[in-house]
Amino acid sequence: MTSQREKAERFRELHDRKKILILPNAWDVPSARVFEDAGFPAVATSSAGMLVSLGYPDGETIPEDLFFATVKRIAGALAVPLSVDLVAGFGRTPGEVAETVKSVIQAGAVGVNIEDFTHTTKKLRPIRSQVEKLKTVRRLGNKMKVPLVINARTDALRYAEGDEEARLGEAIRRATAYRDAGADCVYPMGLVDAATISRFLDALDCPVNVMVRKGLPPIKELEDLGVARVSFGPTASNAAMGLLKRISKEVRESGTYGSLLNEAITFDELNSLAVRKS
Amino acid sequence: MTSQREKAERFRELHDRKKILILPNAWDVPSARVFEDAGFPAVATSSAGMLVSLGYPDGETIPEDLFFATVKRIAGALAVPLSVDLVAGFGRTPGEVAETVKSVIQAGAVGVNIEDFTHTTKKLRPIRSQVEKLKTVRRLGNKMKVPLVINARTDALRYAEGDEEARLGEAIRRATAYRDAGADCVYPMGLVDAATISRFLDALDCPVNVMVRKGLPPIKELEDLGVARVSFGPTASNAAMGLLKRISKEVRESGTYGSLLNEAITFDELNSLAVRKS
Repeated sequence: MTSQREKAERFRELHDRKKILILPNAWDVPSARVFEDAGFPAVATSSAGMLVSLGYPDGETIPEDLFFATVKRIAGALAVPLSVDLVAGFGRTPGEVAETVKSVIQAGAVGVNIEDFTHTTKKLRPIRSQVEKLKTVRRLGNKMKVPLVINARTDALRYAEGDEEARLGEAIRRATAYRDAGADCVYPMGLVDAATISRFLDALDCPVNVMVRKGLPPIKELEDLGVARVSFGPTASNAAMGLLKRISKEVRESGTYGSLLNEAITFDELNSLAVRKS
Repeated sequence: MTSQREKAERFRELHDRKKILILPNAWDVPSARVFEDAGFPAVATSSAGMLVSLGYPDGETIPEDLFFATVKRIAGALAVPLSVDLVAGFGRTPGEVAETVKSVIQAGAVGVNIEDFTHTTKKLRPIRSQVEKLKTVRRLGNKMKVPLVINARTDALRYAEGDEEARLGEAIRRATAYRDAGADCVYPMGLVDAATISRFLDALDCPVNVMVRKGLPPIKELEDLGVARVSFGPTASNAAMGLLKRISKEVRESGTYGSLLNEAITFDELNSLAVRKS
């Protein structure tokens, strides 16, 4: 069995920008296992997807024990590396965030997303405190001998002051500071069109993560632009819930089961997704 | 807020055979909430769907605390009644099964499925011990003043001795005994075609549950036959995982995001599914 350190190293190599890393975000054990079986070289959690599945809105209101136990079950079911979306790290101080990161490493994760946005106030955190947080997490990864992949998200494109140009400037300023603090990859939430992605990549020269959303160029074009990693965010959860709405509508209005039964996996295949493959 | 007793009474009324009860089976909070929002008057859990989501195969290997905590989160997110698939009741004795049922009632459930099949041995349990179990559960519901709806499943159509006719005979014999022991509804796993459903209904004259699967007549025809309740079993989980496979294939092979983004719900809608509506 691959050690956690080897998984972390493999996950790090997937960010080398030679080939784009397509990173699907799951919400539970079988969704993660379907992605692994489909051939993705790593899997991530979506914070919204996983938290809502457990009955908590995106943010940091979920009890931490429940969060860690869920990560542990997902990581334990996978042979590929798992990266975990930690929201803003569940802590006010860098030390508290480091404790959170320690717990998810102990649960089996080899990568983390940490954002610079406070859900409750809808405000960006001060850049200086975010930099301290990332430095502390970097040191922790080194100390634990798990070369953790830190993906530093900034919400400046959506929540910084000023017009679009000012917000892009602030996103670049923050992402640069986060990179210099030890982040392996930076993740500007809301980066969508090819021209803006190009400007961002030119300014950063480090691995950059973009999220799938309407208007995002297809994978090939992202790879040509130099994007290191494209993740699903909560879109797979959104798609699954959309399917349940169509199923509900069909059964209630037409009394038929096409959307429930066609293109579904079998019971045996579902059951097999609870068990680790190798 | 509706009391648990009122929910149980409402759920019981839904089995009056005046109108067929379409009971969708969810695996987590948002899947249950989507079904509620779509207008289903009650929601159930699928044992396979819920257990696999938590990383355990269908059966009774999941830690009971995790099982109950998950039921509590789902029940707590719903305004409509919740019925819980208890597999065979997580216990060797009627008393142990009653303890399980007590815990799921305390977690907010107002209905239970209990089957007469042992996953580990693939064998039917003796009819007499299953009857004792159901009687004990019936008494418990009365004692707790929650008029619990007991749905007694038999796997005789699949696992009894003999040819098809002999297995149908055994399923009828078992379902009759379970009904007489206090079950409110009987659930012969594997009952699919209209002719056999008719024979079963004629023999039982009590509410009967059938599960959606290929070949099951559409809702209108089931209602005309006199079926009281039709449930999804694990099919919604199977359909969701099938969608994730199609999403994976499209993203990996075509580099596009149609199946991820088209017909999906929004992020805000996903988030709203973590919070109880009323």
